[in-house]
Amino acid sequence: MEKHIVVIGGNAAGLSAASRARRGNKNIKISVFEKTENISIGACGLPYFLGNMINEKEDLVAINAETLKKKRNIDVYTGCKVTAINRDNKTITVSSCNGKEDIRYDSLVIATGASPIIPEFADVNTEGIYTLRNLEDGTAIKNYIRKNNVKKAAIIGGGLIGLEVAEQLSINDIEVTVFELSPKILGFINDNYVQMLLEHIEANGIKVLTNNGIQDILVEDGRVTGLVTTKEEKIDIDLIVFSIGVKPNSRIAEDAGLEIGYKGGIVVDDYMRTSDKSIYSAGDCVQMKNIITNTFTYVPLGTTANKQGKLVGANIVGENQKFRGILSSQVTKVFDFYIASTGLTIEQARNNGYNPVSISITKNDKASYYVGGKENHIYLVFERTTGKILGAQAIGSESVAGRINVLVAAITANMTVNDLNELDLVYAPPVAPVYDPLLIAASQAIKKVNK
Amino acid sequence: MEKHIVVIGGNAAGLSAASRARRGNKNIKISVFEKTENISIGACGLPYFLGNMINEKEDLVAINAETLKKKRNIDVYTGCKVTAINRDNKTITVSSCNGKEDIRYDSLVIATGASPIIPEFADVNTEGIYTLRNLEDGTAIKNYIRKNNVKKAAIIGGGLIGLEVAEQLSINDIEVTVFELSPKILGFINDNYVQMLLEHIEANGIKVLTNNGIQDILVEDGRVTGLVTTKEEKIDIDLIVFSIGVKPNSRIAEDAGLEIGYKGGIVVDDYMRTSDKSIYSAGDCVQMKNIITNTFTYVPLGTTANKQGKLVGANIVGENQKFRGILSSQVTKVFDFYIASTGLTIEQARNNGYNPVSISITKNDKASYYVGGKENHIYLVFERTTGKILGAQAIGSESVAGRINVLVAAITANMTVNDLNELDLVYAPPVAPVYDPLLIAASQAIKKVNK
Repeated sequence: MEKHIVVIGGNAAGLSAASRARRGNKNIKISVFEKTENISIGACGLPYFLGNMINEKEDLVAINAETLKKKRNIDVYTGCKVTAINRDNKTITVSSCNGKEDIRYDSLVIATGASPIIPEFADVNTEGIYTLRNLEDGTAIKNYIRKNNVKKAAIIGGGLIGLEVAEQLSINDIEVTVFELSPKILGFINDNYVQMLLEHIEANGIKVLTNNGIQDILVEDGRVTGLVTTKEEKIDIDLIVFSIGVKPNSRIAEDAGLEIGYKGGIVVDDYMRTSDKSIYSAGDCVQMKNIITNTFTYVPLGTTANKQGKLVGANIVGENQKFRGILSSQVTKVFDFYIASTGLTIEQARNNGYNPVSISITKNDKASYYVGGKENHIYLVFERTTGKILGAQAIGSESVAGRINVLVAAITANMTVNDLNELDLVYAPPVAPVYDPLLIAASQAIKKVNK
Repeated sequence: MEKHIVVIGGNAAGLSAASRARRGNKNIKISVFEKTENISIGACGLPYFLGNMINEKEDLVAINAETLKKKRNIDVYTGCKVTAINRDNKTITVSSCNGKEDIRYDSLVIATGASPIIPEFADVNTEGIYTLRNLEDGTAIKNYIRKNNVKKAAIIGGGLIGLEVAEQLSINDIEVTVFELSPKILGFINDNYVQMLLEHIEANGIKVLTNNGIQDILVEDGRVTGLVTTKEEKIDIDLIVFSIGVKPNSRIAEDAGLEIGYKGGIVVDDYMRTSDKSIYSAGDCVQMKNIITNTFTYVPLGTTANKQGKLVGANIVGENQKFRGILSSQVTKVFDFYIASTGLTIEQARNNGYNPVSISITKNDKASYYVGGKENHIYLVFERTTGKILGAQAIGSESVAGRINVLVAAITANMTVNDLNELDLVYAPPVAPVYDPLLIAASQAIKKVNK
């Protein structure tokens, strides 16, 4: 009988696994079951879809089912919800596809992703209350905005996605308020940089309320009209988008008796196998391991999902690849500011038993005399005794992304601030000062090592 | 008697050494002798000074003599040519300062830089024939252009500086032809990328003649009127700028019996000491060591001069820092294209006994649906058997600089293409596709390892 690889979930991790498995083996059967009607959605593009930078939803689709069948011989079943994994007889139960059906697998990949967290008092069936996780959400919000001529939106949660949505709605002439329950937005960024970003966002017309969540939603005729903040203030609002985080879709794994770990993520080994060696898992539904601390974390990102999925596909067809872990590297752009980070915050470093210290520098991203230079602010977290780099954050022009990526490589390679200081980085007036901001940061950091 | 540190040369390497030594020791005497009237010139800005992006020559000066005296207690003597190093009695002979004088040193730093190479038939005293190495050159060329209403310029040499000058003259409405004796411009870049750049340059109105040097210069009334190419063609020209490379100013070191190495560069050990342990040397006058091959090379760059100078300053006051070597990392912008490289070319890799292979990929620098994305072309050289990364080149949007810098870190850390493939690089639609161009390059490279 032909070997059958079954994948639950038709997005980054699932399709990467399926495609990579096919590349490694032409003679197996590969089936993907996706509960929604859409597959291969570039979910990170959804804020820009809302903001009308992207008008056709097809532009968010990396590959469609027809192409997957034709070019890669992968069978994709959309609108098919997998309701159970039956490990004893190695089948999954699929509902709502063509009725109910049990399907045999030899290897199973759980790539069920994650679901947005919403508070109990919010009913997503109310018109005007949304999360933004998939194409259906994006389309619904867009339609709602158009139909109801939305003027005032509330974004609940001041993380990266919340800010991206805020920016995009704002440039579409919607008055936006961001509500953040904790004392600051972007909890993983140092206070000074958050303050810079905050001022920039507010100068662009977005209101940000920190220490301020919402405790209730006001509804009239089945539609949102306002909200009540945790400070008891009533605010008129036409649209609410929740962006307070996601939780792994690990229920089906848990029900099947697979081991569940940090924040509900499915436990996998370095080869991305679950506690059942016939079952792999990848993407936003698994717990992750931090490369620096070797401890578990949960930072679901598209980059990780793609890498893990690909690795699962390779291992299913007989390779033996290990996933090294993550650095929680992140970046976004909000108006003219780019903000990026990797590795540990100083608090995380402390909590993991390091004796960390930090520095921050500000430097132009071009030679001082070269027209058009913009500031880069770079913040390093490193070990006081050894200078080992533990984390980095940056805010400023687009070039901060590349500079944080240099630090991704540096941290992965266990470099110290001394090693960073010696890097033979490229220089020409149009792209950097003769001492690159990274080298300035390193030289400042060196002064704090061993003191 | 107060310890006396004497520095020959008042630019990047010399002043870095002087300043760093002062930071390490407040109680020594530090004197810098500079043969020109200007110190601390950002020489890499000279093309942009020519092109009128920079109008005041002061903008090219990082620090002046007065500030060096006041803030760092460093005595700077400009217009003072050092004519000899007398190692037996530890003095230098200075001429043309206040007559002739012998000055005692305890530690000496030779930071004499490099001089432009010009062919025998070119007389730089002829009006209209220039090199571009220091502020005097830049000012002279600017004055000449203005006074003579220059319409047609020849740049001799298609290296980075030649191209920068060509761009800057061209955007100032001068008709520019670049003459390159070898078969291609930018010899350290692969043929395909050179071809792309060439088409871009020519589309912007610059003529590039390869396999075409010049063999004679036509002069009337002491002023340039034309040139004769190595193909015997006569071309009318108002201005000639030689940009065919530089040679180390090591004569004074050689005369003093110090060891001279690769391409005439002064030999230094890892601590930047010459063959006389009281004498250090740094910057464009020394031979350098390639980090990958551990062989000698000569790629004089401002970044290296600054790093080496700083290290010399530290070692003079009792530290014990080693200079790791260079990767010959380079970058520039020519019109809309940025071009960058680091490490070995495939030919260099071969010549150093590696079994190298290369790949090249093209990928947008933003998510496909994000407005404003531009292409990045990335070329990797790596070892066939191990995948160890040996070199990289890139051409495209400004972000290639940051991507090459990631590879600088990767090469320095001895990473393989597999390691590169695993890097947790930042991702958001405004700064990268979900698979960063670097990861795409890595995944393509992996397929060629061990084959």
